[in-house]
Amino acid sequence: MAHGAGGKASRRLVEGLFAPLLFGDSAEPLGDAALLSINGAPVAITTDSFVVKPLSFPGGSIGELAVNGTLNDLAVSGARAEALVVTYVLEAGLPVGILEAEVRAMARAARAAGVRIAGGDTKVVEHGKADRMYITTTGIGRPLRGVTIAPRSVQPGDKILLSGPIGDHGITILLARGELDIEAELRSDTRSVFPLVEAMVSAAGPGIRWMRDPTRGGVATSLNELARDCGHGIVLLEELIPVRDAVRGACELLGLDPLHIANEGQFLAVVSADYADAALNALNLATGGEQAQIIGEVREQPAGSVLVTTRYGGSRIVDMLVGDPLPRIC
Amino acid sequence: MAHGAGGKASRRLVEGLFAPLLFGDSAEPLGDAALLSINGAPVAITTDSFVVKPLSFPGGSIGELAVNGTLNDLAVSGARAEALVVTYVLEAGLPVGILEAEVRAMARAARAAGVRIAGGDTKVVEHGKADRMYITTTGIGRPLRGVTIAPRSVQPGDKILLSGPIGDHGITILLARGELDIEAELRSDTRSVFPLVEAMVSAAGPGIRWMRDPTRGGVATSLNELARDCGHGIVLLEELIPVRDAVRGACELLGLDPLHIANEGQFLAVVSADYADAALNALNLATGGEQAQIIGEVREQPAGSVLVTTRYGGSRIVDMLVGDPLPRIC
Repeated sequence: MAHGAGGKASRRLVEGLFAPLLFGDSAEPLGDAALLSINGAPVAITTDSFVVKPLSFPGGSIGELAVNGTLNDLAVSGARAEALVVTYVLEAGLPVGILEAEVRAMARAARAAGVRIAGGDTKVVEHGKADRMYITTTGIGRPLRGVTIAPRSVQPGDKILLSGPIGDHGITILLARGELDIEAELRSDTRSVFPLVEAMVSAAGPGIRWMRDPTRGGVATSLNELARDCGHGIVLLEELIPVRDAVRGACELLGLDPLHIANEGQFLAVVSADYADAALNALNLATGGEQAQIIGEVREQPAGSVLVTTRYGGSRIVDMLVGDPLPRIC
Repeated sequence: MAHGAGGKASRRLVEGLFAPLLFGDSAEPLGDAALLSINGAPVAITTDSFVVKPLSFPGGSIGELAVNGTLNDLAVSGARAEALVVTYVLEAGLPVGILEAEVRAMARAARAAGVRIAGGDTKVVEHGKADRMYITTTGIGRPLRGVTIAPRSVQPGDKILLSGPIGDHGITILLARGELDIEAELRSDTRSVFPLVEAMVSAAGPGIRWMRDPTRGGVATSLNELARDCGHGIVLLEELIPVRDAVRGACELLGLDPLHIANEGQFLAVVSADYADAALNALNLATGGEQAQIIGEVREQPAGSVLVTTRYGGSRIVDMLVGDPLPRIC
């Protein structure tokens, strides 16, 4: 299960098996979307399978997540989604009402984002060979002008921005399974982050060096990947990282770090120091970006690692997610 | 299960649920790929999930099928594949050797076709929540010049071309499951048909009106969909349809019609009468197209249906596939 959790085991699987065989000897760091040239036009493409359990949860459901998750991978790659295609793997016996609800959720999310669903495919497997339904979405889009995402351009002195509170999605899913005797007023943060990205790019495009949506593996895993790819250190000030009380409380009870918990409606950005305030202002003024924060900065040390410091001067190295405390989160 | 078989129930599901909700009120007939414009450049896109059982079979395996199946959907839409993206849904406990074999099969098929694999995603579900692995591939490509696929342009007098013998894939899968006490020297026909399509387009592009790869539901289902979309009748001469003895024998034993059996390396084309010989010659001269045939023609009657005639003057209407005699064929 850990190989699907988005942390260290996932990274080993991708870097040890998939990438060398499938992507050849490309030396580019792996991003959220691939950039291609079709007939001379730049095109961004990204794909994800969704196996979230349960299918619906406070704040969202698999259909909505499958649309917004893919839109977000394009957004943090600096691309505006133009179209989605979708496949369903359905378990025989799935009530048609459940399928219809998720198809409607997809249509609604796509319409809200102004993105066309251009095609799809459906397969049915025997009862017991899937868990109700799995959805795969692929998004294609066109790169926004005025922004280039490149982890290797990240420099000491750059600021780390976070769009809002972390951990809402992962903890909501965990509680929605009903296996723990914990209740909390919490909803998944699932949404399209493209409007926020677009606002930030308009205001601070030339200063944006890197973006990522910290889904599986959370903020800690995304920033560890960045630290490794850019070779610098990432230093976060813990008190600046927005975490709701309900998330913090559940994490304390369960021995989890909010920095490892999945998000579905937040993104991280590295912005040069001279553009950081403009980027933050743009986010804070946009709907849904009111709680965006500068949470830290890039330094020379600890090279390749993520260090979290507290207001009392304590500090700890935070690694990628190891193992899988929360399987099937998206 | 019938809803996944590609026949009547699948069509009802797509036309009754997916299309109205997801594709809006587009009046275009559903094709194998969608044509989009990104930054002014025409781009074709198609997506498919693969759930074939068993994972490997004489002539191919799920990884190879997932690449070639998607390349073929682009090919019969008149597009050259430029890149693929891929997702895996893996069952926890899957031996890594099996995964590696399928990743290698994908890489090999993509390399053979000269197509880049640009990205991907992996999810892991608990043991018992998938059947070893499901693969989803999405292909994007650029439309070939000089050919337009449009079922509504099909006219009485046009000829129906078939690239080679039918039923090899479906019967191979059926026998590979080992549930029947039948043995036969048979291999799946899985391959990329793009080289054949390209040769035919070069020789007869202006005369080509429609193409389709008759996968789930077979030749009968593809031609019934065409008959419905164009409003004319499709008349086939049974003796001209190439079927290997092993396929014919298995179908007779099992009460199946080869016209309903899935193919993975064949395609159908409708070509205007004045270009039909040029198209057939081009196929027959290309490697792997030696057994291509003109198998029938478009007539005014029976409008909206497919009629098969025998050399003795008998005839029968052949409907779309109903039910699912061969689940999880691709």
